[in-house]
Amino acid sequence: MNKSDIKTLLEGVKDNKIDIEEAVKKLEDLPFKDLGFALIDNHREIRVGYPEVIYCAGKTVEQVRDIVKFMLTKDNNILGTRADNEMYNAVKEICPYAEYNKLGKTITIRKNSQITTKSYIAIVSAGTSDLPVVEEAYETAKILGNRVEKVIDVGVAGIHRLFAKLDIIRGAKVVIVIAGMEGALASVIGGLVDKPVIAVPTSIGYGASFGGLSALLSMLNSCASGVSIVNIDNGFGAAYSASMINKL
Amino acid sequence: MNKSDIKTLLEGVKDNKIDIEEAVKKLEDLPFKDLGFALIDNHREIRVGYPEVIYCAGKTVEQVRDIVKFMLTKDNNILGTRADNEMYNAVKEICPYAEYNKLGKTITIRKNSQITTKSYIAIVSAGTSDLPVVEEAYETAKILGNRVEKVIDVGVAGIHRLFAKLDIIRGAKVVIVIAGMEGALASVIGGLVDKPVIAVPTSIGYGASFGGLSALLSMLNSCASGVSIVNIDNGFGAAYSASMINKL
Amino acid sequence: MNKSDIKTLLEGVKDNKIDIEEAVKKLEDLPFKDLGFALIDNHREIRVGYPEVIYCAGKTVEQVRDIVKFMLTKDNNILGTRADNEMYNAVKEICPYAEYNKLGKTITIRKNSQITTKSYIAIVSAGTSDLPVVEEAYETAKILGNRVEKVIDVGVAGIHRLFAKLDIIRGAKVVIVIAGMEGALASVIGGLVDKPVIAVPTSIGYGASFGGLSALLSMLNSCASGVSIVNIDNGFGAAYSASMINKL
Amino acid sequence: MNKSDIKTLLEGVKDNKIDIEEAVKKLEDLPFKDLGFALIDNHREIRVGYPEVIYCAGKTVEQVRDIVKFMLTKDNNILGTRADNEMYNAVKEICPYAEYNKLGKTITIRKNSQITTKSYIAIVSAGTSDLPVVEEAYETAKILGNRVEKVIDVGVAGIHRLFAKLDIIRGAKVVIVIAGMEGALASVIGGLVDKPVIAVPTSIGYGASFGGLSALLSMLNSCASGVSIVNIDNGFGAAYSASMINKL
Amino acid sequence: MNKSDIKTLLEGVKDNKIDIEEAVKKLEDLPFKDLGFALIDNHREIRVGYPEVIYCAGKTVEQVRDIVKFMLTKDNNILGTRADNEMYNAVKEICPYAEYNKLGKTITIRKNSQITTKSYIAIVSAGTSDLPVVEEAYETAKILGNRVEKVIDVGVAGIHRLFAKLDIIRGAKVVIVIAGMEGALASVIGGLVDKPVIAVPTSIGYGASFGGLSALLSMLNSCASGVSIVNIDNGFGAAYSASMINKL
Amino acid sequence: MNKSDIKTLLEGVKDNKIDIEEAVKKLEDLPFKDLGFALIDNHREIRVGYPEVIYCAGKTVEQVRDIVKFMLTKDNNILGTRADNEMYNAVKEICPYAEYNKLGKTITIRKNSQITTKSYIAIVSAGTSDLPVVEEAYETAKILGNRVEKVIDVGVAGIHRLFAKLDIIRGAKVVIVIAGMEGALASVIGGLVDKPVIAVPTSIGYGASFGGLSALLSMLNSCASGVSIVNIDNGFGAAYSASMINKL
Amino acid sequence: MNKSDIKTLLEGVKDNKIDIEEAVKKLEDLPFKDLGFALIDNHREIRVGYPEVIYCAGKTVEQVRDIVKFMLTKDNNILGTRADNEMYNAVKEICPYAEYNKLGKTITIRKNSQITTKSYIAIVSAGTSDLPVVEEAYETAKILGNRVEKVIDVGVAGIHRLFAKLDIIRGAKVVIVIAGMEGALASVIGGLVDKPVIAVPTSIGYGASFGGLSALLSMLNSCASGVSIVNIDNGFGAAYSASMINKL
Amino acid sequence: MNKSDIKTLLEGVKDNKIDIEEAVKKLEDLPFKDLGFALIDNHREIRVGYPEVIYCAGKTVEQVRDIVKFMLTKDNNILGTRADNEMYNAVKEICPYAEYNKLGKTITIRKNSQITTKSYIAIVSAGTSDLPVVEEAYETAKILGNRVEKVIDVGVAGIHRLFAKLDIIRGAKVVIVIAGMEGALASVIGGLVDKPVIAVPTSIGYGASFGGLSALLSMLNSCASGVSIVNIDNGFGAAYSASMINKL
Repeated sequence: MNKSDIKTLLEGVKDNKIDIEEAVKKLEDLPFKDLGFALIDNHREIRVGYPEVIYCAGKTVEQVRDIVKFMLTKDNNILGTRADNEMYNAVKEICPYAEYNKLGKTITIRKNSQITTKSYIAIVSAGTSDLPVVEEAYETAKILGNRVEKVIDVGVAGIHRLFAKLDIIRGAKVVIVIAGMEGALASVIGGLVDKPVIAVPTSIGYGASFGGLSALLSMLNSCASGVSIVNIDNGFGAAYSASMINKL
Repeated sequence: MNKSDIKTLLEGVKDNKIDIEEAVKKLEDLPFKDLGFALIDNHREIRVGYPEVIYCAGKTVEQVRDIVKFMLTKDNNILGTRADNEMYNAVKEICPYAEYNKLGKTITIRKNSQITTKSYIAIVSAGTSDLPVVEEAYETAKILGNRVEKVIDVGVAGIHRLFAKLDIIRGAKVVIVIAGMEGALASVIGGLVDKPVIAVPTSIGYGASFGGLSALLSMLNSCASGVSIVNIDNGFGAAYSASMINKL
Repeated sequence: MNKSDIKTLLEGVKDNKIDIEEAVKKLEDLPFKDLGFALIDNHREIRVGYPEVIYCAGKTVEQVRDIVKFMLTKDNNILGTRADNEMYNAVKEICPYAEYNKLGKTITIRKNSQITTKSYIAIVSAGTSDLPVVEEAYETAKILGNRVEKVIDVGVAGIHRLFAKLDIIRGAKVVIVIAGMEGALASVIGGLVDKPVIAVPTSIGYGASFGGLSALLSMLNSCASGVSIVNIDNGFGAAYSASMINKL
Repeated sequence: MNKSDIKTLLEGVKDNKIDIEEAVKKLEDLPFKDLGFALIDNHREIRVGYPEVIYCAGKTVEQVRDIVKFMLTKDNNILGTRADNEMYNAVKEICPYAEYNKLGKTITIRKNSQITTKSYIAIVSAGTSDLPVVEEAYETAKILGNRVEKVIDVGVAGIHRLFAKLDIIRGAKVVIVIAGMEGALASVIGGLVDKPVIAVPTSIGYGASFGGLSALLSMLNSCASGVSIVNIDNGFGAAYSASMINKL
Repeated sequence: MNKSDIKTLLEGVKDNKIDIEEAVKKLEDLPFKDLGFALIDNHREIRVGYPEVIYCAGKTVEQVRDIVKFMLTKDNNILGTRADNEMYNAVKEICPYAEYNKLGKTITIRKNSQITTKSYIAIVSAGTSDLPVVEEAYETAKILGNRVEKVIDVGVAGIHRLFAKLDIIRGAKVVIVIAGMEGALASVIGGLVDKPVIAVPTSIGYGASFGGLSALLSMLNSCASGVSIVNIDNGFGAAYSASMINKL
Repeated sequence: MNKSDIKTLLEGVKDNKIDIEEAVKKLEDLPFKDLGFALIDNHREIRVGYPEVIYCAGKTVEQVRDIVKFMLTKDNNILGTRADNEMYNAVKEICPYAEYNKLGKTITIRKNSQITTKSYIAIVSAGTSDLPVVEEAYETAKILGNRVEKVIDVGVAGIHRLFAKLDIIRGAKVVIVIAGMEGALASVIGGLVDKPVIAVPTSIGYGASFGGLSALLSMLNSCASGVSIVNIDNGFGAAYSASMINKL
Repeated sequence: MNKSDIKTLLEGVKDNKIDIEEAVKKLEDLPFKDLGFALIDNHREIRVGYPEVIYCAGKTVEQVRDIVKFMLTKDNNILGTRADNEMYNAVKEICPYAEYNKLGKTITIRKNSQITTKSYIAIVSAGTSDLPVVEEAYETAKILGNRVEKVIDVGVAGIHRLFAKLDIIRGAKVVIVIAGMEGALASVIGGLVDKPVIAVPTSIGYGASFGGLSALLSMLNSCASGVSIVNIDNGFGAAYSASMINKL
Repeated sequence: MNKSDIKTLLEGVKDNKIDIEEAVKKLEDLPFKDLGFALIDNHREIRVGYPEVIYCAGKTVEQVRDIVKFMLTKDNNILGTRADNEMYNAVKEICPYAEYNKLGKTITIRKNSQITTKSYIAIVSAGTSDLPVVEEAYETAKILGNRVEKVIDVGVAGIHRLFAKLDIIRGAKVVIVIAGMEGALASVIGGLVDKPVIAVPTSIGYGASFGGLSALLSMLNSCASGVSIVNIDNGFGAAYSASMINKL
């Protein structure tokens, strides 16, 4: 149920075509649905423009399946992040066309045909080890209806690789930069493009990378302007913000 | 010198209207200007869409003045951030129409008439003590040609103040949220709007706020999606990213 | 043995009804019982109002069982926290009516009938992943004789869910707020109720949540007054403090 | 304006004694007052039971004075914390009976006669250097209408001093413990009383005390139950929570 | 080979009773023995008064066994710390009278009869979970020839348990205090005894204990004098220092 | 008043030479003296063997002077640490023979003749910049009645300087090692002597020394045994512990 | 393909011996090879003097094998670091003469005969537990064509072991020092040699070593000059830098 | 006094040209000179190849002057780092030809003519604010006899500035990279040159740069090989290591 649905309902009430009691009942269900262990936020699409996403980590397989089961009663696409294989299998039983990205650990269910944007999001990553975050961002951006171009393994240690792909990066409406270790790629790209850059530090590295802290601090202190940051390994969050920007 | 200037120059060369030696000289100066203690990046407007900004902290008064003096030979607006009063006085001597925002610590010089965007950036802040960061963001957004609406002192401790201003916030194309202490405002707004949110943690607080670390971590871990972050107290960076988005 | 038991004993001594040697022996056992690997604090109920609780983590299954065995010789209710399934099985063998909360990892043994308070403690949590801490708090509050109301999954990303439950929260005598990630829920509730709030940061999150540090710092810096904090994931501690307050 | 004032107003409307337009105007002003640089939260007393407190740090002298000037138009007591001498002088000019606690850095203005509670809050501190935090807590507790007993300089290095004062501490309805360095006093008192303890770590110490971090971590990890914590040096916050509890 | 052995050897040389070549050979072997993967420090007993101890963590089972095999050719007692069961089994094969403390994870081999000191070391611990560190300290102190008294489970949450054992603690020549969580026990004992206290923070705790950091900082900031600290969980180091002091 | 004084008093009571009321009065004053802002711990000398020391940092000049004034009514030596020049001047007015160590920031008052120990404490330091901590340790050790030998500027960057002084160091009964930067001196000395070593990390250094954290961690992880640590810059604490050991 | 190969190619073009299309094709392949999940940097040998090294951690077995397979089509030696046994087995299948260093976790493939330097790199380590890092450094230095001398187990706790090996260390052209715990060895050696020292902190230690942070900070703050540092456990990086220096 | 001086002396003794007593006296003075507050390390030039450098921070003006006074009696060049203006004035009084670099805070005294190396050290820096560290490195490298080329203000935000200077950088024998904020310059240069790179993180930045921690971690985690690091702002240390390498 989206904004125009609500407007139609209220116009029906005004024009005496819909009984008030009936309208109340329909609206009552609107804000959220209580599943016992979770309150599903139905209001969300109206309020922030997207359906709720299931962050699967820390939930049981049963909880994930039950949330999906409820969501399937609505007419929205569904995205589950940080989902393991067992969760996917449970979901697949109740929804055979659910898809799983093994590297990105995402479950996606497409219920309605989607219009893809003309402008695109570029997802740029530093090394092969950053691919899981790339995939999470990719799946998120796709299910939110965006055209996406991936440019991988262009870390600054061999900066000519980056320059060779600069046209693709510069053609995007918004750029996601994903890098671990020292995260220098975000600053370098920030200095080369005139589009908003969303940087994702990854936990790739060892020793003094302290689980991604090194890349995080590095990106926060980027000497190039136009770079904003999301949490370590948060490919989903970067794609969500990028999608908002890409659709402006 | 912007992209179309370069194109004109090259067409002049092609059409034999401009001597090659002359063109080389003009272009030679393009990438950067060596001031001895600094290489001014002239290329920047072409590459990333904006003129270089002077980050005054850590520079001497003389260095700031000399950089401004050189920049005045070009036809761009000028922004100096983290400038103290003494720097402003030195700049004012060589450019009487330079303006100073005392709270935001910015110097601004407007050399050409600016078209302001129709869509606007909302700058939302939690408390009175966050105002210096608000002002830095405000001046930056303005000189970059954006319409800006400020919504101040709407921290979550009295959340009804926020709801009273929600229409202004929701009407923006992009929202900057500025908050110190626990930085909860970013998550709350992130959950209420369907526009990209750029959050700025501030160093306001004491004890376990550890100079803004508390708000920074809080914002990075926002449970609401669509929130990206810049460095602590970095009002400039937030406005720069927001301007890029607002102008899409 | 509680305060009035001691008083009775001493009056018996004064009235020559109880032999001094006998009284000494009874009292001698009072302060603590030496189990070899642990000194059970019998004095505790007199001193702080509650029987000792067994913090099972870091103890062997045998140690937990032996402590419970000794405690069963007294007439108090028993609570074990952070107990795994194996510990519960060992306890169940010596006390068949022991109960286990799998999610909350608590063992509870009810030896005497309990009067439940009229006023209640509200336990409010942000997300489904915080449930283990909710359950530890719940079991603790219950065995200490409190009426408890749970309000779960009302994180600030969908703040209308919280407002829908505000009456239950405001009706409590003391409120426990349990949240991970950025822990913003504590500040928001602190600004909405006129009752003491005890906040529990949880280790839920990833990346820059640093095992709950993010929520901890956030809650410590709450811009709302009336919020005090316990250790990360310490549902027991929050419920213990809340129970003290609820029984005032 | 408190709850019963609002009720009277609404009854006046219902009984046609007050014009609706007039009532709207009165209520309109209710939620907050826009001072340009701050939104004063008038609603607060109704919502959380106390008038808003002015956190003076980070505000200019003019801002503090103007907020006080507006608040003086209402009928509530006023508390300013972290106020320096200059701020006090500015306030005194517009309110001659304003009082200043030099050590605690508080400004207090008493506008209406106060009923003091029978039960009391005990404020217990470890060393002489913790006195500024003690005084901030004391002034806060007093202006909120509480009886207060101070027990100072009873740190665990000379634990007999603590035992000599134990009766006063045990007689309180709620205990505030203020300590820096290793903050051990909170655990020791937590193990000796059957009342809620609110612990305030202070920044007193040097070297590895890291500005109060040592005492903060110590108190968060208290092996005694019934201890909750507020931010480093946050005497105000502790007293505010304690007042809520003391008035239950 | 100890100092008097060397003196005897040199006197033999001086008196022409020992051939120089022969003496050189004997002395040559003195400083260390190269095992290929390790240089065994034979000099150590002369230089610092004790034989080298094997820190087994990070070594392979074969390396531990080979070091022990070489050491058995000398006439000293042997101590292995942080040894797992597999290492012990390998050692037992080449030395059947080797002993293993399962909790303390120590291997001990007694080659010569030992004189135990009259004065004793008191090892005092806060909780049952600290026992592994207690045992490591105990085994170390014993093999170094000290009389030891253990006082366990006397944490400050039930401080009367500590007072009941104060005589044993005060009777010691040096006191080792072992505690996790907030480590308050070190300060309390430091304020009650007139003997040197060596404090060992343990990694017992959760959440904001950060693997023992909380207890470590707490002990470093002890408000009581006469307390020095060793590394987290370093029972061996504490006992080693205590033994040096006890034997003065 | 020391242990034998008390015994004499009690014998007087037993032998009816002293009136009970009179004895009570004398003893009443024993544990501590309330100065309003501080409880002076008179009991301390009996309990831990030394008079209380005044930690002047964080106290006002008046408080320091008043505590000294009271202490002068007793017959003990007095030590004030972290005292600035102003404090010393105030003390000198009421006690002309008070002495001040400018580098070590200590005030010392000698009221009774002292017997100095035969065995000595060696205070060894790495660099010239560590001298303030050396002096604090020196003054503390001296007023507590110890013979002291200083060995300064023998940091490991020029290790031959250390070897040249090794005899003095090895002749001590206990060694204090004071070093900043990487604090390696503690490990090196720990491996060269057979006496207890108390290491003091100093805040000397810059950049990644993080105010002494570098030296602190280094010393805590010393690969040499027999090394225990006190807080950063805590020369007093090291000397206090060393004095206890030296007097065994 | 190296610099002289390229020069030859270009001369062929100039002299019309090589067709331009053909040259383009050859050069086209030059900068990098796209494997789908990785861009292999062929340019690297020309640019920085060495072939690319495969950092195997975070890559799948298939990815490692495929990268090696492609590299085998070139004429360079190959080094894989942080490789587990499974990866080695996969590589061995496609290249039977691949070698594996189990301790150092390196895979090495020697395709062309190597000239070893006359000058040598000394690799010096503190303890047996540091050997894995020693081996990674050793294999790296060897495959890059360096003569290497290992000096192991010479930690400062038994400093005479170090002095006995000083000649070997002083004979090197560049020294790698590998140490965990407090990392003091770097400072001591830095003060004893007149050659560049590259220090590698290791994660060996426990408690307050915080995964190598202790040794890292220690080495960064070395009081001896001429010491530079690489990341924790980064034996490869140290050897790579050392090789560059050794070949000057 | 250098190695050949010593050899000459010893030959004089052997040939009976120098009296043994006289030789002893000369040699006695060799290792260090005791100035009371400092042991000047005369041995240093022999041992590590350079005269001792005076780290002036934390020393008094008198101490700096006295150390210089003693050093002037020898025939070496002198370098003082972190010297303020007052120190320089004191030195100038006793040595009129002493020079002061105001930005770099170095005092230099040239006593003997110096041969400058043919190969050079490139000092590359990211921004104008890094100049103080650049100057400290420059002065150090020069007094140690190196040819130096400075390349300043080539931070990655305008990476074309760097490429324009790449030839100078690639022509060096060793490269020092100095950068604050996110320190990305080190990785980028590490990937572009085939010479050893020594990176110096600077404390330039704000907010989450945490006094240089951001750049430090970034550089330690450089994805480019051949980069080693010195302490934050340690221009001296970088130049010292670079000089060792440049002179190989």
